[in-house]
Amino acid sequence: MSIDRRAVERAAHRIAGRVRRTPVVEVEAALFGAPAILKLELLQNTGSFKVRGAFNRLLGAPRAPAGVIAASGGNHGLGVAAAAAALGLRAQIFVPTSSPPVKVERLRALGADVTVTGAFYADALSASIERARDTGAVVVHAYDQPEVAAGQGTAGLELEEQAGPLDTVLVPVGGGGLVAGIAAALEDRCRVIGVEPARCPTLHAALAAGEPVDVPVGGVAADSLGARRLGRICFDIARRTGLRSVLVDDDAITAARSLLWEELRVTAEHGGATALAALAAGAYRPASGERVAVVISGGNTDLRTLPRAPG
Amino acid sequence: MSIDRRAVERAAHRIAGRVRRTPVVEVEAALFGAPAILKLELLQNTGSFKVRGAFNRLLGAPRAPAGVIAASGGNHGLGVAAAAAALGLRAQIFVPTSSPPVKVERLRALGADVTVTGAFYADALSASIERARDTGAVVVHAYDQPEVAAGQGTAGLELEEQAGPLDTVLVPVGGGGLVAGIAAALEDRCRVIGVEPARCPTLHAALAAGEPVDVPVGGVAADSLGARRLGRICFDIARRTGLRSVLVDDDAITAARSLLWEELRVTAEHGGATALAALAAGAYRPASGERVAVVISGGNTDLRTLPRAPG
Repeated sequence: MSIDRRAVERAAHRIAGRVRRTPVVEVEAALFGAPAILKLELLQNTGSFKVRGAFNRLLGAPRAPAGVIAASGGNHGLGVAAAAAALGLRAQIFVPTSSPPVKVERLRALGADVTVTGAFYADALSASIERARDTGAVVVHAYDQPEVAAGQGTAGLELEEQAGPLDTVLVPVGGGGLVAGIAAALEDRCRVIGVEPARCPTLHAALAAGEPVDVPVGGVAADSLGARRLGRICFDIARRTGLRSVLVDDDAITAARSLLWEELRVTAEHGGATALAALAAGAYRPASGERVAVVISGGNTDLRTLPRAPG
Repeated sequence: MSIDRRAVERAAHRIAGRVRRTPVVEVEAALFGAPAILKLELLQNTGSFKVRGAFNRLLGAPRAPAGVIAASGGNHGLGVAAAAAALGLRAQIFVPTSSPPVKVERLRALGADVTVTGAFYADALSASIERARDTGAVVVHAYDQPEVAAGQGTAGLELEEQAGPLDTVLVPVGGGGLVAGIAAALEDRCRVIGVEPARCPTLHAALAAGEPVDVPVGGVAADSLGARRLGRICFDIARRTGLRSVLVDDDAITAARSLLWEELRVTAEHGGATALAALAAGAYRPASGERVAVVISGGNTDLRTLPRAPG
């Protein structure tokens, strides 16, 4: 179960016109310690890259009378709900009882049928898979499905078109769908590095163990990057392409997020600022002249936790 | 006293590498009532376009031992302070006593020497001009200087390069520096429309009166667009190029600003969302197929006044 650049190109063709071509901005070295090209995927429909994979999965699957189903109180749920609505499909989204009401309402506002069940995400996921078995609904996994990972990878193709030749792309890692897609898209063309919170290091642990293993999940970015273990697709691509993991701590993530707002008026969520943290905190140090791009993956964030602005 | 496209091209050459090439993003019709290409100038250094004009003015003026001087507690002050610091020039910024301490601190953090004087902006401006007469400091006007307007116009040249042929560009108007520069840059190439708050309608009033006249200043966008009267440069360009004014009320501005955040994770200040308000509220209705760009001019805003996000 793997994907390659051609799978990502097919995904780009399939979802063209359904997702936004998110902008890039090149910033001077003074901001984050090195010049960088930021891919502002937080400007994507629903505020994160997730809608790319959702569209690619749904457009590639047979239409089921029961519609589509996914488990997520976060970005993945929003992406699936929005893609389903755009395609006229019924969406059932399972979320754990710990989900804040504001997230449930956001899903309902997108037209989703929300089922609140189970104390933890894993429980909601199990319940959703069981339901899909009964109803035949199309399951959209949060990261470990070829169509999903290939869809996320379209952000990498776009980035290459927009930025020209790159040496390195820094990508945040949770379950690994985004980084897998981008690594497949840019294989043999540039270095892709997965950046992950030290408190949910799925890629790091998988590379160390020789296979995906469970990790403790915590820290400021757990809401968007807090997968329990790396997806198999990502692991296979990591081995094939030499994908590396760089770890960053919560302070580095929080500082990068604040800097993005103060210096650039970009309001990333913590997970969205995680790849940038590797650059800003020096966990990844580019060589002189190295062309580095950074994916800012999402902006579904509580603005009250950002520093006061000059306005 | 006027400027043309060549003046803007010279400005672009002069300030190249000193300001950011801000990104554009094309958004679907569902968001703002018509498809639109947004020029995200809020991602510019200091959070607004003002640094463009400041660099062009300072790089074109002889170096004075007394440095540079400007009056503004807002975006213009930040732009001048940042440009002066980058060029190793001393900056004196005059602000009225009504300026919030957070703005004064922001200016000082950029290395400016801040003088707090006079109850209103006009008093701070008079005092700054008087001081400049004594010291020989280079004055940077907030909008009514050819180098300043030409510098702001570089945003229009960039937009054209990034977006390709356009039919219409919507630009917010305060004193008119930005819209003058963009109208000069795009003269005979596309339609430029000035959008202004109904509560500080400098362009509208000038066109009606046949010359710039004082207007009442108020409303939600007064902090960035609240000039007392249109600049002469803008007025001359308005007559020459047929620049039109479209008025929007405060509710439309506030709604457009909220939509930008909710649908796009873009945190504009009220003035920065004013041009978009014309599209979103239907005050400007493009024809079918018309290619419309909108300048989102600044993001120095209080995030606490935005709706709650899904984060």
